[in-house]
Amino acid sequence: MKNLLYAQSGGVTAVINASAAGVIETARNHPQQIGKIYAGLNGIIGVLTEDIIDTTHETGEDIANLCYTPAGAFGSCRYKLGDIANHRHQYERLVAVFKAHNIGYFLYNGGGDSQDTANKVAQISLQLGYPVTCIGIPKTIDNDLAITDCSPGFGSVAKYVATSTLEASLDVASMAKSSTKVFILEVMGRHAGWIAAAAALARSPSQPGPHIILFPEIAFDPQAFLTKVQASVDTDGYCVIVASEGIADIKGEFIAKSHNKDSFGHAQLGGVAPYIASLIKENLGFKYHFAIADYLQRAARHIASKVDVEQAYALGQAAVAMAVAGRNSKMPTIVRTQDMPYAWEIGEADLTDVANFEKKMPADFISNDGFDITLKCHKYLAPLIEGEDFPKFVGGIPQYVKLKNKLITKVLEEFTAL
Amino acid sequence: MKNLLYAQSGGVTAVINASAAGVIETARNHPQQIGKIYAGLNGIIGVLTEDIIDTTHETGEDIANLCYTPAGAFGSCRYKLGDIANHRHQYERLVAVFKAHNIGYFLYNGGGDSQDTANKVAQISLQLGYPVTCIGIPKTIDNDLAITDCSPGFGSVAKYVATSTLEASLDVASMAKSSTKVFILEVMGRHAGWIAAAAALARSPSQPGPHIILFPEIAFDPQAFLTKVQASVDTDGYCVIVASEGIADIKGEFIAKSHNKDSFGHAQLGGVAPYIASLIKENLGFKYHFAIADYLQRAARHIASKVDVEQAYALGQAAVAMAVAGRNSKMPTIVRTQDMPYAWEIGEADLTDVANFEKKMPADFISNDGFDITLKCHKYLAPLIEGEDFPKFVGGIPQYVKLKNKLITKVLEEFTAL
Repeated sequence: MKNLLYAQSGGVTAVINASAAGVIETARNHPQQIGKIYAGLNGIIGVLTEDIIDTTHETGEDIANLCYTPAGAFGSCRYKLGDIANHRHQYERLVAVFKAHNIGYFLYNGGGDSQDTANKVAQISLQLGYPVTCIGIPKTIDNDLAITDCSPGFGSVAKYVATSTLEASLDVASMAKSSTKVFILEVMGRHAGWIAAAAALARSPSQPGPHIILFPEIAFDPQAFLTKVQASVDTDGYCVIVASEGIADIKGEFIAKSHNKDSFGHAQLGGVAPYIASLIKENLGFKYHFAIADYLQRAARHIASKVDVEQAYALGQAAVAMAVAGRNSKMPTIVRTQDMPYAWEIGEADLTDVANFEKKMPADFISNDGFDITLKCHKYLAPLIEGEDFPKFVGGIPQYVKLKNKLITKVLEEFTAL
Repeated sequence: MKNLLYAQSGGVTAVINASAAGVIETARNHPQQIGKIYAGLNGIIGVLTEDIIDTTHETGEDIANLCYTPAGAFGSCRYKLGDIANHRHQYERLVAVFKAHNIGYFLYNGGGDSQDTANKVAQISLQLGYPVTCIGIPKTIDNDLAITDCSPGFGSVAKYVATSTLEASLDVASMAKSSTKVFILEVMGRHAGWIAAAAALARSPSQPGPHIILFPEIAFDPQAFLTKVQASVDTDGYCVIVASEGIADIKGEFIAKSHNKDSFGHAQLGGVAPYIASLIKENLGFKYHFAIADYLQRAARHIASKVDVEQAYALGQAAVAMAVAGRNSKMPTIVRTQDMPYAWEIGEADLTDVANFEKKMPADFISNDGFDITLKCHKYLAPLIEGEDFPKFVGGIPQYVKLKNKLITKVLEEFTAL
């Protein structure tokens, strides 16, 4: 009987721990096939350094509460394995760790880069002759993973962005007569505009915000943009803009990078919103406010989408079932079977098909003027933010679980070649 | 029988409409003393321009739903009346409007500047011989109003900031091993640090963030700050900082103003967070992320404090009772009678004592090193974020009410001397 090793990778989300709960609760229900359930501390880094958590010490209640806890309960990492040809020592180390701790199942929970790592680990069986079943579990707020209809983490950030855009739109509408006329919300999305697109869900017949959405898929055209800002202020008295951090000019250069210097003269990361704000102030003279949601958006478990939490959990469950069935080098996916009422089921993808691929917004999801989504996109997005699944609050703030994260005793030499 | 005129002023909040609901529902229960219930469109501006909403057209259900709706349902303004000696035309216009529409009660809902306006309107009875009972209703996220123990709007922004700080702290803790080590959240508070202080409520024995809070009351000392950032990273592996937008250097100059230029070379408003981030990167080299909450924090009705909603409503109720009792030039206040379990009642202040006064954090609410709150401050803050009062969600986002806001027919000449 083999042990299972789970790890979290890449930028964390409001629901990645729900996938962890799905994995651990399901694995605990397979005592005939799965021995110990381990977790890597800080993703693949902890696996390489033999910093491995024994989840046996965690109570059933704490594992259940992972469903309500944002961020990565076992720690995450930004670390890519090298290719096996040139970085064979990393793979030999993994085999040594797997052998030392009798690992037969490796489940890696992350986005495109992380699925690349999962895919590489899946080669160990063939190339190094150590049998391990490797399953990827999808996760990314960016919603840019291939094959799966959507990615866990996205629905919750979409709900946060739609709700925040709605609330800020009401705010600026109240102030516009004598004060702020333009509000800009900067959201994540370096190469794909899915998160910004979700802001459109804030709109209703009586609530026109957001007036403008800026996507990384569309080259930023300052003149067309300013014309639309002016038109929105003329019509409604104010203008609400939601901008992806990754918008770029016609040459493909990031707006944030080319226009912002910090007080030390360095190009400043982030900061699309202040540039947009300055552009409007300079050309149209409107008073503005801007918000940069940054980590708040992806950590906002307090306003997570119930659909998203359920899918994250189900994908963790499915990953264990696939591991036990020996489906090496696969990733469970979300398959949409119906838009309205929304229905979905679990499918399966090859890791080679999802590794290192970024799914951008299709052209027919963006309006002709480039500043809005289409009805088709709206139909796609709307079900993903459905349902609330509030955490328990104690003392006015959400009660999030902190695991014991007890490490197992190391038996190998220290690994210093990260 | 006289009519009542209510208006909203200054920056809006998550619960100012709960005060409006308190006013309108209570006034509707006084048909013997109060005739029509009017609201100024965009605060005192609408009163001056005779843009007056007749709330009779709003259903009881819509008025009740104001308790769940952020921002200013009747529109707000940033506009101060001049003094009566030099701007007598404004006051004469107010009297003309009051006479034309038989206004006997004027209720003005706002912060320090707005209470100044309320106080000036209260002088009309004596100085211009037109009898109107004027009551201020407290409101400000900044919590800087005098006499009242706290101000409606603050408890909800405090809950938002504490929750967001908790969530972002878990996020950066997950990433710190191989990526972001410093996270900065910039919050509102130009002159008083109450909002930043509330971030401390995010802390628990297993959750050390925020490690540093920056208050406007304490001159920013870059060296002491950097030392504390390094110490936090040494101890916990990461550092979470919550900064008031209004922090200033030893000379009293706003950090945001002195260090940030936009891409057109102008001093950039906002932007304490990017400066702090650059300072850390430059001196300590840590990877950072920052968020600027801006309007999101004060509009976040989805995570409002139940205590705050209840107090906002009760103050609206009390204002009507005081108006009917002829208590001119007063403001209902929150009087704390007990910390734990928290208990409060409604008191009364003279408008002259609250107008134009900013209540800053007392010295014994800030720790000796200037980067944290004291136990005394914690005891003060904790009850204010207690309780949840979620809005109804439809289609995954909160259902906020949009009033009809039907204007009455104007009978006066146009007023152009705003």
